[in-house]
Amino acid sequence: MFVPLTPIRFLNRAVDLFGAKTGIVSGDLQFTYAEFGDRATRLASALLKAGLRKGDRVAYLSFNNHQLLEGYYGVVIAHGVVMPLNVRLSTLEFINILNHSGARFLFYETEFVELVDKLRTECPVIEHFIPLDAAYESFLNTGVAERPDAFQFNENSVAELFYTSGSTGTPKGVMLTHRTLYLHALSVAGLYTDIETMVDLHTIPLFHANGWGHPQSSTMLGVKQVMVRRFEPGSVLKMIDEHRATDMCLVPTMANALLNSPELAKYNHSSLRCVMLGGAASTPELVTRVQAALGCTCIAGYGLTETGPVITNGRLKSTLLDQPESEKIRRQAMAGWALPNVEIRVVDNDLKDVPRDSESVGEVVVQGDHVMEGYFRDEAGTEAVMAGGWFHTGDMAVWDEERYIHIVDRKKEIIISGGENISSLEVEKAIFAHSDVYECAVVAAPDDKWGEVPAAIVVLKAGCKLTEGELIAFLQERLGKFKMPRIIEFTEEPLPKTGTGKIRKMVLKERFWEGKAKRVQG
Amino acid sequence: MFVPLTPIRFLNRAVDLFGAKTGIVSGDLQFTYAEFGDRATRLASALLKAGLRKGDRVAYLSFNNHQLLEGYYGVVIAHGVVMPLNVRLSTLEFINILNHSGARFLFYETEFVELVDKLRTECPVIEHFIPLDAAYESFLNTGVAERPDAFQFNENSVAELFYTSGSTGTPKGVMLTHRTLYLHALSVAGLYTDIETMVDLHTIPLFHANGWGHPQSSTMLGVKQVMVRRFEPGSVLKMIDEHRATDMCLVPTMANALLNSPELAKYNHSSLRCVMLGGAASTPELVTRVQAALGCTCIAGYGLTETGPVITNGRLKSTLLDQPESEKIRRQAMAGWALPNVEIRVVDNDLKDVPRDSESVGEVVVQGDHVMEGYFRDEAGTEAVMAGGWFHTGDMAVWDEERYIHIVDRKKEIIISGGENISSLEVEKAIFAHSDVYECAVVAAPDDKWGEVPAAIVVLKAGCKLTEGELIAFLQERLGKFKMPRIIEFTEEPLPKTGTGKIRKMVLKERFWEGKAKRVQG
Repeated sequence: MFVPLTPIRFLNRAVDLFGAKTGIVSGDLQFTYAEFGDRATRLASALLKAGLRKGDRVAYLSFNNHQLLEGYYGVVIAHGVVMPLNVRLSTLEFINILNHSGARFLFYETEFVELVDKLRTECPVIEHFIPLDAAYESFLNTGVAERPDAFQFNENSVAELFYTSGSTGTPKGVMLTHRTLYLHALSVAGLYTDIETMVDLHTIPLFHANGWGHPQSSTMLGVKQVMVRRFEPGSVLKMIDEHRATDMCLVPTMANALLNSPELAKYNHSSLRCVMLGGAASTPELVTRVQAALGCTCIAGYGLTETGPVITNGRLKSTLLDQPESEKIRRQAMAGWALPNVEIRVVDNDLKDVPRDSESVGEVVVQGDHVMEGYFRDEAGTEAVMAGGWFHTGDMAVWDEERYIHIVDRKKEIIISGGENISSLEVEKAIFAHSDVYECAVVAAPDDKWGEVPAAIVVLKAGCKLTEGELIAFLQERLGKFKMPRIIEFTEEPLPKTGTGKIRKMVLKERFWEGKAKRVQG
Repeated sequence: MFVPLTPIRFLNRAVDLFGAKTGIVSGDLQFTYAEFGDRATRLASALLKAGLRKGDRVAYLSFNNHQLLEGYYGVVIAHGVVMPLNVRLSTLEFINILNHSGARFLFYETEFVELVDKLRTECPVIEHFIPLDAAYESFLNTGVAERPDAFQFNENSVAELFYTSGSTGTPKGVMLTHRTLYLHALSVAGLYTDIETMVDLHTIPLFHANGWGHPQSSTMLGVKQVMVRRFEPGSVLKMIDEHRATDMCLVPTMANALLNSPELAKYNHSSLRCVMLGGAASTPELVTRVQAALGCTCIAGYGLTETGPVITNGRLKSTLLDQPESEKIRRQAMAGWALPNVEIRVVDNDLKDVPRDSESVGEVVVQGDHVMEGYFRDEAGTEAVMAGGWFHTGDMAVWDEERYIHIVDRKKEIIISGGENISSLEVEKAIFAHSDVYECAVVAAPDDKWGEVPAAIVVLKAGCKLTEGELIAFLQERLGKFKMPRIIEFTEEPLPKTGTGKIRKMVLKERFWEGKAKRVQG
């Protein structure tokens, strides 16, 4: 029997099987899955009454809250395409993205009202601006709740559109289909343990792929989902305690902030069972510290907006159960190995596997159900990343006999110094291993002799006084000579980050290159 | 990215990720997943060289062994349809089924050589008879191993054909597509716990739907799979000990036989973590006894060949965690609630939900990815069970607010006595609650006054001497008067069973009805 694969079935399932259970916690509000389903379907109906046409994009400017999650279902039920924006972009990026997408509806939290006023002028295609306040409730009230019929949906149509970049060139809108979302959720659900007692804390913004790894699976399985509106270590620790959260995803910078929070000892986090690290490379040190400090399993994972997002994690394979603890931790900190539904390889420029020797560097390529349909209105951009029928991640990695993948760098962030490839990540990890370091970034700086050299920007922990000479002495034991940073800058400012806590290395790199010709990326 | 959903991807995944791991244990033989993949792909190649055409049916007469599992992949990789026969059918049934299917290839274990000689005459369409002995190895050697390309398969084409009946009328061949098998496996995998340390014992014949609930999931996840060629309590207990098996599926009669085996104390079964009961209705008593005797979790489940098979099980919902132990056990013994991918309802003749009050009886109907494509070459038969777009299981059930389903009887086995519906299962459970009873069956016998009355056939445990009068006295405390069996027959012969251990109630019923007009089934 053919039934279209669509996440709308997850909502129906949650309503049928977990209707009376508290499904969504958002600030002071709680909704059962029946209430949530009622709201999402009224949203769908209200959008249709307001003139939404099949395939119309509906944008969101919102931190994590129940309204955003309602949009993930309601917009899609109305045959629209939900388009959550990264709220930390620049005004210019918003304008570029919204105009590129042709979104006709924009839902926004009222704190973005000034931005929205600019968008009213700059994005004439947007016809409906709906604030997520009382006006949203009135809007919902124009709709009627009706159980959606999965058979009315084309599983290969686009359900979600995530823009990953808008600053230069063509904005890249990642198109994910109903089918992709369905299969991704089913695969991720297979990673869940103790589903029936799970409480899922959404720490990462849902508008970002990293935040979007869990909610569909959790809805499908009737798991209680708690929204973290904005990540702030103290409030997250408080929410873990208050809601007895068992699972959460963190980017390494968030994990780092939690571990260094003075409020760590103040709250009870004994309910935690699993912390997934994603969005940036982890280290065995970080995994060890999270496990020790939070008393739970910590596993890194890997994915991109273009891959659904989740495609690997570092869970221990059955073939490695007898390895020593340090080796297990080393693996848990890796990108790891493939989930069901995806095939992943590390390849050279001819799409041939590089040796599985943990040394040979190649690009990570992916085939499978989790991979996007393409970039919206960008055939050339899509073709460029889909060469040979494999999605090219732009991430450089090594892999081993067990097919654990270890990312060494973004293709664009590899530092080429005197013909040698230097992984900026590897240098960062060496610096980060020093106990005085709070955070750091290593980027390529221009050099007349070597072409490029590593430059490090370092933030120390409060009260620490590490000098350049001491840091260099520390690194000399850990890094080959050609990998040593030739520039070390200490700063007290937090490093610039994306909406999900990734360090914006391109911003840090820019100023070294002002007035210089850049290397052609390749 | 669209990638066809086909179980062939599971084989590739097992070879890639678990190539060096012992995947399949069959008698004295062990195969790594790489070796298993090599053999399955050589089988595909050999079949093509022998003239297999796209869509050709390839039949198997075989108990559980590695060759049969190789067929599940090799035949399908060759674009054939694998068709495992229930080896316990009658010769006439085999002839009817094979001729109906038009199978051109038949693989058989040599113990079936006499039967096969008859089939050579009676089934002229079969061109290739290949015994699963040295000749099979030679056959494999005509093929070359080549990694299959998932993109070459149409996910909506039929991959497996299971005949559920061949004695009368049109044989019913259940068609399962690549897509159905893929999605079923992904959903069942979500029920697995501690995947990386799991050892899956295949106790139920793979030629039957009940045996086929796990192997695709286990291959996908690289779980070690141990073949039980034929179920025999002592040898199964020995294999649990020897292979440190963690999971197995049993039909209730098998569980009963294991619990009553004198060899239970002889072997170590501490590795067991989960026993799934399926194929016939369970009881809280049986669940309790299995958990106590085997020291593991025991959960009933439910499905049919036509539904992939698995669609529900009695795992505890998050909303019931605070229930008393007896209530938990009661739920664990039920058919239970829906897995992801399937929607299940209990309905009246107008396809309307019966009240969720644990009392109102209706028919179980199913919609979802696990449901078959239809019966092979039987449009009328398919239409009859697919009325209104829902697969009609023919099972009568009650359900409750939590959507746990409790099967009360097969539609055909309900006893209609003086206008009252009597669940033959309910009467059987009441009899079975007596500690002297080894097994029993209750069927409808004709009665001039009441139309039908319950007739019980009872087998006592060795050494027990229960009389009819004592049993009736026992039942009077448990059953309403109209449900009391009017005929009680004691027998020392084991009751006739299907290949999977289900009691063949139709056979027992027949002799009561000889020369009488039967009720029209409704």
